[in-house]
Amino acid sequence: MKIPFNKPYISAKAEEYMTEALRSQRHSGNNAFGQKAVNFMKQKYGFNEVFLTPSCTSAMEMGALLTGIKPGDEVILPSYTFSSTVNAVVIFGAEPVFCEIDPNTLNIDASKIEAHISPRTKMIIPIDYAGISCEIEQIMDIAKRHDLIVMQDCAQSFGGYFNGKPNGSIPHLAAFSFHETKNMNAGGEGGGLVVNIPEWHQKAYFMQEKGTDRRLVLDGVKSKYSWVDKGSSYLLSDILAAALLSQLESEEEIISKRKQVTDAYYKLFSIFKKKGNLNIYSVKNHIRTNHHAFWVVFDNAGTRSLFMEKLRAFDIFVYIGYMPLHSSPMGAIFGYKPDSLPITEAISERVVRLPFYAGMADEGLNYTIEKMHLVLSEIYGK
Amino acid sequence: MKIPFNKPYISAKAEEYMTEALRSQRHSGNNAFGQKAVNFMKQKYGFNEVFLTPSCTSAMEMGALLTGIKPGDEVILPSYTFSSTVNAVVIFGAEPVFCEIDPNTLNIDASKIEAHISPRTKMIIPIDYAGISCEIEQIMDIAKRHDLIVMQDCAQSFGGYFNGKPNGSIPHLAAFSFHETKNMNAGGEGGGLVVNIPEWHQKAYFMQEKGTDRRLVLDGVKSKYSWVDKGSSYLLSDILAAALLSQLESEEEIISKRKQVTDAYYKLFSIFKKKGNLNIYSVKNHIRTNHHAFWVVFDNAGTRSLFMEKLRAFDIFVYIGYMPLHSSPMGAIFGYKPDSLPITEAISERVVRLPFYAGMADEGLNYTIEKMHLVLSEIYGK
Repeated sequence: MKIPFNKPYISAKAEEYMTEALRSQRHSGNNAFGQKAVNFMKQKYGFNEVFLTPSCTSAMEMGALLTGIKPGDEVILPSYTFSSTVNAVVIFGAEPVFCEIDPNTLNIDASKIEAHISPRTKMIIPIDYAGISCEIEQIMDIAKRHDLIVMQDCAQSFGGYFNGKPNGSIPHLAAFSFHETKNMNAGGEGGGLVVNIPEWHQKAYFMQEKGTDRRLVLDGVKSKYSWVDKGSSYLLSDILAAALLSQLESEEEIISKRKQVTDAYYKLFSIFKKKGNLNIYSVKNHIRTNHHAFWVVFDNAGTRSLFMEKLRAFDIFVYIGYMPLHSSPMGAIFGYKPDSLPITEAISERVVRLPFYAGMADEGLNYTIEKMHLVLSEIYGK
Repeated sequence: MKIPFNKPYISAKAEEYMTEALRSQRHSGNNAFGQKAVNFMKQKYGFNEVFLTPSCTSAMEMGALLTGIKPGDEVILPSYTFSSTVNAVVIFGAEPVFCEIDPNTLNIDASKIEAHISPRTKMIIPIDYAGISCEIEQIMDIAKRHDLIVMQDCAQSFGGYFNGKPNGSIPHLAAFSFHETKNMNAGGEGGGLVVNIPEWHQKAYFMQEKGTDRRLVLDGVKSKYSWVDKGSSYLLSDILAAALLSQLESEEEIISKRKQVTDAYYKLFSIFKKKGNLNIYSVKNHIRTNHHAFWVVFDNAGTRSLFMEKLRAFDIFVYIGYMPLHSSPMGAIFGYKPDSLPITEAISERVVRLPFYAGMADEGLNYTIEKMHLVLSEIYGK
């Protein structure tokens, strides 16, 4: 049996909706299914406004443009994240300022953000690793005191909550990923930008529509649209929005299946946690996970390799997670060295992300747990 | 009967391919259908390398990033184009330098480009209005002499030819649109970037994959990928690539239907050309159209309005074309006034684009021609 790292879940209605979108002959962005998906999210999660985009990366770029980011601006973010978090501001000439992570969540350590603030700081981009929210209220407090913008990279955390509030509803801006590796999949590629500042909505409509005021024409306010701002084609095909809607409507089913995976991994690793001196993520009471992922930090890189190799022999594919940005070739260009962020560097050499997808609950979870139990027993003893 | 300005053509295989892509559970970018579509294009048109992107806009941005564009660089382009042509460089801090158009094609007037070149000029972005190629060889000559990069905005011209060479195969970079308004439709939204400089391919792979060297991991050269460059998620969902492939395979059918529309419009307008002092686009011998669109420049703005109003009464929707960029709000920010480009300004007030889609050949073309004949007779006499 082969257990891939990820396998997208196909909702029952996906084909029907996508076919309907295709046949409508109106399947470019912001058409019927896109509007339905946006309304669904606004009603269920209380987002102020949502823009569906081709990817989370492009949602982040749209958010960055919306803030008026410019060369020389500094942006504080964790180094332990995907390249899109940083490139979304670097392509516009901004400079990354990397902050250490909290070993309990691998999210940005909010207590260390303030030390990085300079007169050039423009924004903070925390991420929600593995679907567990960052300490967003503490980060918003810091931002408020220093007049900074917070764009929460919720690539992994759609459907989770912080203090009872849906992820994405608290910061100024939030970006979601609907890539096929995520809980909710918009036909392979897709994203969404939440804009919680009403004064920014019109500018966001313009930016999404290639920097034109086409929105005013659609609203009947103007008869011709023209070039009024920077912008791009931050639009999601209605066929992909149709796939997304089918997933949004299946959220309870998807989450319930994913919860079975979380529970099984927790049960397994609680047996070996102490023996192996393993660090497993913990979820505080005020945070609700969306069951996106499961990670384990081993006591050293050698054990991690051993664990991975032994699982590979059973056709089980685990994943090392991110290569930290600060110690990458681009990090070096911005003046960072591997030891600039020792906590991030040390953890990244020992972390493993386990196979995780909704379908595992139906097929593969028992096999995976059984083989992992075997492997961990071989490494740490029964 | 209602004749919209545009209506996308659905190829017979579209649903089958899209469903196959969805069910494959590997439908993020650069998967099976994307590779097939890319290979199809490379074999049929001889492009050096093609990257499928979420839109033509993002293809242009990827192209701009690839050139290393930076704040202060100047880019020469026509004002008579869509905002994406200019925003693709403006979002990275470059400055547009608008050049006049040739009244016979509404494309950039190549004979006027050289006067705009300064030490800060980085690139030239001509467009192929209505699917008719710009004078790309003349433009490449200019670029060669001044060491400039040419990115051809082929948003409308996929499938057309210049001197026997497919559009997109001559310049350093070319961008295609597969939006639903174009000849070839990738499920609503889509684009492609042609990179004809082999030395740029690796950088382009990295930029398309969020600025990571993931490509080297897929190729087995490296075991882990990391952040190596600027970049974004310039990827097209494989479901949309499946829709695109179905269209590429139907190109002959689509072009043949569209040619019937061109022929009917030419026949009709040849009757009124002299009477109305109308300017209809002409295609020189060395250029082959892809039958994307049909435009007419009226002798004055009043007649244009009359023509449009009268057709609207028959539920026939014609379109005024672009609002020039130089006289837009953003154009003003870059120091332009309406009379900075008098030819562009004058033509844009008088041009009309007629309804144009493959399906018209099956239904609606006779009705459209009949009513237009009536309207033109009312205006100019029989």
